[in-house]
Amino acid sequence: MNNITPSIILVHPQLAENVGMAARAMMNCNLSDMRLVSPREDHLSATAISASSGAEEILHQAKVFDSVQEAIADLQDVYATTARHRNQTKMVYTADKAATEMTKAIKQGLKCGLMFGPERTGLENDDVSLCDAIINIPLNPKHCSLNLSQAVLLVGYEFYKQQINTLDEQFVTNDTTIASKEKLQHFYDFLEVELNNCGNFSIDEKRPRMLRNLRNIFSRRSLTEQELNTLYGIINYLKQPHQK
Amino acid sequence: MNNITPSIILVHPQLAENVGMAARAMMNCNLSDMRLVSPREDHLSATAISASSGAEEILHQAKVFDSVQEAIADLQDVYATTARHRNQTKMVYTADKAATEMTKAIKQGLKCGLMFGPERTGLENDDVSLCDAIINIPLNPKHCSLNLSQAVLLVGYEFYKQQINTLDEQFVTNDTTIASKEKLQHFYDFLEVELNNCGNFSIDEKRPRMLRNLRNIFSRRSLTEQELNTLYGIINYLKQPHQK
Repeated sequence: MNNITPSIILVHPQLAENVGMAARAMMNCNLSDMRLVSPREDHLSATAISASSGAEEILHQAKVFDSVQEAIADLQDVYATTARHRNQTKMVYTADKAATEMTKAIKQGLKCGLMFGPERTGLENDDVSLCDAIINIPLNPKHCSLNLSQAVLLVGYEFYKQQINTLDEQFVTNDTTIASKEKLQHFYDFLEVELNNCGNFSIDEKRPRMLRNLRNIFSRRSLTEQELNTLYGIINYLKQPHQK
Repeated sequence: MNNITPSIILVHPQLAENVGMAARAMMNCNLSDMRLVSPREDHLSATAISASSGAEEILHQAKVFDSVQEAIADLQDVYATTARHRNQTKMVYTADKAATEMTKAIKQGLKCGLMFGPERTGLENDDVSLCDAIINIPLNPKHCSLNLSQAVLLVGYEFYKQQINTLDEQFVTNDTTIASKEKLQHFYDFLEVELNNCGNFSIDEKRPRMLRNLRNIFSRRSLTEQELNTLYGIINYLKQPHQK
């Protein structure tokens, strides 16, 4: 399978710093093809390189074009990212839905692009009309303005999530492993004996309920073997006669 | 229903600019409760206010604490955001799964928090151990370092998405509406008559196939009534005898 990722097209970006930060965001999301339409500042300036925080390779390989048309000429499926409502008859996707659609398009062999406008004004309507669809990133409508690199990051992140297959929750136990029920039962028995020895069960009828409560404390979240050992250790220590 | 959103706890943030940008990201995601644990710089400095891009209200209402323990004292469910692997026995969630879990917790009336470490070093292991779970934002493992405000933005964005109910795809038609099949059929008939008049169907056996192709062009994506009118208009114009 070809490993093609969408091109990032920055139309008339104003600040070299933002282009650099956009490169960093692209690298965060494993994107590599940056296309710049007549940037105002030099995208290889020291400011840009520094802002890219190690993603300067993307800046060095970036292609510069004179027009939006040239920048997207070889692409087949292009999305315009915009925060404002556009008076255009067009499909509007959330960022995650656009990532799903784009992933399907790429699997069909299409070359995709994501277009972002200048920092202050965003994309012009004529640029939007060249695109197949619009991406609206769902954000607080009272405060939805994003830095250019943050817009690149959010859309790129949604695309990246589609490419990977991460467990969305994972109980990390490192070198130890989750204790078996037998080991847990052994610990409950040990605890009961020790509590009995120290006189904790003076009222006999409360005993079953307290044991149930204790089991609930320790069974609620998986204990590892190492954690069981820690618990044995502290109980053994606690029951020793202390020097006063 | 109470409209509580998670608190954002920034542990020892170094730069006022980053605190300001984090406030902006919080406002993007409709979050309001910022908690700072001994920030190095003044979070109400001109730099911070300027970086917040209109989210200064969040900075003004931010609470400052001396320790992580005090900052999370009233919370019940706290997530540590970290890029590095931690040698701790802990549940690790992706950002979107954590957002789902946190949303459930909030619906149960729990007060939640999201903890972020200092820019260079991230959270200390002792801070992480105070938290219920870890959030790992899925990003390119070769380049996963994020600016503090970008980490806040990505996690906040995932939480925000859970709070809203947006159509993930929407065909925007503005003041017009999608043409009915009857209007579309009328247009096909009109097109056929005009093409016939101008001699387009000189080879009769090709006619059905060409009409099918034309219907496929215009039926593939929903045409609006306004767009149909535009098409009638250009065809009427094209068929007029031109002045040479």
